[in-house]
This record gives sequence, structure tokens and C-alpha cells, in this order.
Amino acid sequence: MKKTHFELIILGSGPAGLTAGLYAARARLDHLLIEKGAAGGQVLLTDWVDNYPGFPDGLSGFELAEKMEAHARRFGLNTLTANVVSMDLSQTPKRLTTEDGEQLSCNALIICTGARPQLLGIPGEVEFTGRGVSYCATCDAPFYRNMHVAVVGGGNTAVQEASHLTKFASRVTLIHRRDALRATKIVQERAFANDKIDFIWNSHITAIEGEKGVERIHIKDNSGKETSLAVDGVFILIGVIPNSEMLPLQLLKAEHGGFIPTDNETRTAIAGVMAAGDIRSKEVRQIVNAAGEGATAVLAAEHYLNNSTL
Amino acid sequence: MKKTHFELIILGSGPAGLTAGLYAARARLDHLLIEKGAAGGQVLLTDWVDNYPGFPDGLSGFELAEKMEAHARRFGLNTLTANVVSMDLSQTPKRLTTEDGEQLSCNALIICTGARPQLLGIPGEVEFTGRGVSYCATCDAPFYRNMHVAVVGGGNTAVQEASHLTKFASRVTLIHRRDALRATKIVQERAFANDKIDFIWNSHITAIEGEKGVERIHIKDNSGKETSLAVDGVFILIGVIPNSEMLPLQLLKAEHGGFIPTDNETRTAIAGVMAAGDIRSKEVRQIVNAAGEGATAVLAAEHYLNNSTL
Repeated sequence: MKKTHFELIILGSGPAGLTAGLYAARARLDHLLIEKGAAGGQVLLTDWVDNYPGFPDGLSGFELAEKMEAHARRFGLNTLTANVVSMDLSQTPKRLTTEDGEQLSCNALIICTGARPQLLGIPGEVEFTGRGVSYCATCDAPFYRNMHVAVVGGGNTAVQEASHLTKFASRVTLIHRRDALRATKIVQERAFANDKIDFIWNSHITAIEGEKGVERIHIKDNSGKETSLAVDGVFILIGVIPNSEMLPLQLLKAEHGGFIPTDNETRTAIAGVMAAGDIRSKEVRQIVNAAGEGATAVLAAEHYLNNSTL
Repeated sequence: MKKTHFELIILGSGPAGLTAGLYAARARLDHLLIEKGAAGGQVLLTDWVDNYPGFPDGLSGFELAEKMEAHARRFGLNTLTANVVSMDLSQTPKRLTTEDGEQLSCNALIICTGARPQLLGIPGEVEFTGRGVSYCATCDAPFYRNMHVAVVGGGNTAVQEASHLTKFASRVTLIHRRDALRATKIVQERAFANDKIDFIWNSHITAIEGEKGVERIHIKDNSGKETSLAVDGVFILIGVIPNSEMLPLQLLKAEHGGFIPTDNETRTAIAGVMAAGDIRSKEVRQIVNAAGEGATAVLAAEHYLNNSTL
């Protein structure tokens, strides 16, 4: 009979899930990592990773995901490819249901389902992701030395990152659909005082074009007037969406549209349920801190399993 | 004139400090990383690192430290070798004083001074560290498949790790200087019920011996009787000491003998001061989560610098 109960289930196979898998396998926990598709999560969409410590020359997102997966497999990672669509975390054991109707259960659960950037949904956006279109200035700013980049957004992230980008780019054009920014006052003031930043108000991008990489964007203002602007890159910083559709958000006390609050040890509001990586309610979403949280989560899970009377 | 003021100072060059350095350099922050000795911290004392995600075959601690340092240097890390002996964090800018009397100041500070294991201070202990003597079962347990290991200690960590080690070792002997354990009841019960674990009470190790690696330990009980025991490894799990001698512990609301409490974003009780890595008050001390916290700390520092009116 197929095994359906595990001490620990890890949901998701990005850097947090793969690191949790590595630690769970090394700890010889009775575990299962459930992955929806190929291992790597958002890292697979990242052309080049220059800021995961220990790889001085950088490496492709694909290569990093492969290495992380191979690492966990070396220690005996158990995986299942399935799409979990719902779960019952109100009792022990915790129960998960897949799209195919399969039922799985576990005593401890680590949620690593990640998040995804809010897309504009315009022609050229997906095609040029990693080749001029970026959703992370912290990751990609250094690739744009002495270039002209556009930033889309008006919140704290967009405005702060516009200022940050001027340390590399020669010119930053911030495009916002309203006539005022939402960012904190002082962040706004610094952007306004920065002569490398110019602003296009009441406007949105309608298309991204180029040959090998981004060369220009089309902009439409609220009166319907269209223009185009030559740029080398576009940073789309309009928000992050948690992959939390399958989660019991109320029980997990989810906030900001589905992110899961945790304590410093990645424990959620539900005993025996941890959350690691981009799905956590937090400020900084980087590969290395997702990985770090994956390790912390397994040790928190072990602690829970060792100290509970299940 | 020599520059003595920086936007950001990072104190310490273990995985947390080096990752903070990488992120600070990449963000082109006006920064200085102060290292006491060679970069790497405790990683330099680690013979083989098998659990830093992305290196499926493992690598030596020395090699990982070198790679992390080279990575940060590639992006322009600025370092100073100095021993900071005191600091004034009660005002802005924050002031640091080195052993040589040098004065440095900064607007934001990231404390990554780390921690060190409590040693037994017996012959053979230092000589065999990394060759049979270990202070981290999570890191080293898989090296002891089908071997006999001793565990020294009686607290939660020691007893939990003794149970954990039985997943690999064929026999675990726990040696405790008292006649009862301090660990949580249920953790104790599981250890007592585990027939791979035996206990030597009211005793301490007086020496560790062997040729290339650990072969035997000498044990003395409280009545003075001496015996010896053949073992392949010794896990010394009697506590962790924070490297906090130079820190204003009261201002930082330090706890558990000098560890620094922080929020999820690594912010301490002092505005503009972050703490990352083993110096943080936390449960899990692993290379990858130290690194992750280093990244988080720089983004928290940037946020502080962007939003303060310094």
C-alpha cells in the first residue's frame, strides 16, 4: 500500500523547500517534499543569480536550483509531484488533498509555497523577463551600470529602488499611474532630490519591445496619449502575490493578502506548522534568506515532533 | 586623512558578516566590514561543510569561507582588520573603539560577532576538533553511521541530539556530570526508551585520545574512579557562548548571557542597529541561516538609512 502519512511534509520546492528537504533528509526525518513542477521555484525564472553567497562568479538560476536539488537528493530527499489544492490544519494529523484527490497526512508541515511578482500583463513582459525585465532591484541593479532604466510603481519599494538604481544606472525614469507617490515622505523627498530620476505621472506602460533585450517601452497617459521611450531595462515593482490559494488563511492569521506571519523560528499560529521563504510575512525576499528559513523550519519541526505527545 | 565615518559598519566576518558585506557592497553602501582575524568565523574551524545548500558534494569550511569572501570582494567589499573592544550606541553616529585606540563611527551597525561553543578544556579536545570532536550534531551526525559516539551534556540540546544521533550511530553513550538530566521530560523519556542510548551518570570526561581520529575517552566519576571508553566520536553539547564582550548588553537588552534579541527583520532594541548570525538570540545556529540574516540585516539597514533624517 502506498505510504500516505509522514512525520513531516514540506510543501514547495524553491530554495526554502529544497533547504528544508536537505535538512529533513539529513536528519532522517520521515518526510515528503511535495513539488508542483520542477524544483527551484522562482529561481528557475532567474536568468543569473549573483547574490547567493559562495558563488563568486554567480550562476544561472537553473544551475542553482539543480545544485540545491542534487544536494538534498544526495541525502535521500523524498519527493512527490502533485498540486495540493486544500488542507485541513485544524486537527492532528494535518491533512492535505491534491488536485487528483489524493489524501496525505503529516504531524508537522512546512509551508514553502513562495510568492510571485505582480505582473503588468502587457506584451513583451514575459518574453523579456531576465533579459531586461526585472522584478527585483536588489538582485539585478548591478547589471545596469550606466544604462537607462524604467521603474514602474509608486509605493515604497518602487521609489526606494528607483533611488537605489541610480547608484548604477545613469538615468532612471519612474512611471506611475497616479499623480502622487504612495511611498513614505522621506523616501519620496530623496527621489525628488535625485537628479538622475525623472517622473512620468498618470501613465502606464502598454508594451515592452526590443530584439535580444529590452530597447523601448510604450507609454499611455490617462488622457490616452501614447509615447515611446528608449530604455535598457524595466523594473516592475508593483507588488508581490503570495502563493496561498491552498492555505487556510484564517487559521494561519494570514496578512497583507495571504502572507503568513511567523515568529523568529518560522513557527506559524498553528502548532506544528512552519512557514519559510517568500510566503512568510516579511520585508526581505532573497534566495539566501529563504534557504536559511528552510533550515530553521526543519529544526523547529524536529523540536515540535520531539516535544509533542503525538 | 583616513576615513573614519561610514554609513554602515558590519562587525564580524563569519557567514553573516560576509553575506552582509556582499549585500552592502552590491548596494553600493558606504560601508566597512571589520574583521578580527581571517574571514570565515567558526566556519574556519569546520573541517567539512555538508549542509550549506548548493554544494551537493560538500566543501571544506576553509573553502566556503574563501568563496564567500571572494564573492563579496568581487563587488567591492571594504574591510579593516581590527579588534573592536568597546562602543557607544547611545547616540548617532554610533561610535566604535578598537584595541589600538582607533575611533570609527557609523549611522547603521550590523553586529555579526558570532558565538563559540563552550569547551570542556581537556587534553585532546582542541586537537581532535573536526576529527572526531564535534559541537554540532545537526552538522556532523551523518559522518558517524554505525559508529559509537559519546555525548557530553544533560540539557535539551544534548539529550535531543543523543536521540538524533541514534539515527546514524549504532550506539550513543551520554555522559553527564549529575545524576539527572535537565532536558524537558518528554525529551528525557524518549532518550531513556531508546535502547541505542546508554548513560554514564555523575561523571565527566578528562581526556580524549587517538591516533588520526578519536579512539577513546577517559572518564572520571564523582567518587574519583577512572575508566576509559572506546568511542569513534565525542559530541560536546554543554552550551554556546556569545561573542558579546564588546557590546553594550544593557542597551541591546541582551539575554541568555549575552545573545541579542531581534525582530524578524534582525532589528535590535537600538534603532539603526541590526544583529545577524549566531550572536542573535535564537534556537537554530546554522551557516545558511546566518547568511540569510546577513542579507536581511543589510536591507533593514538600508531601510533605516533611507527613512531616517540623519
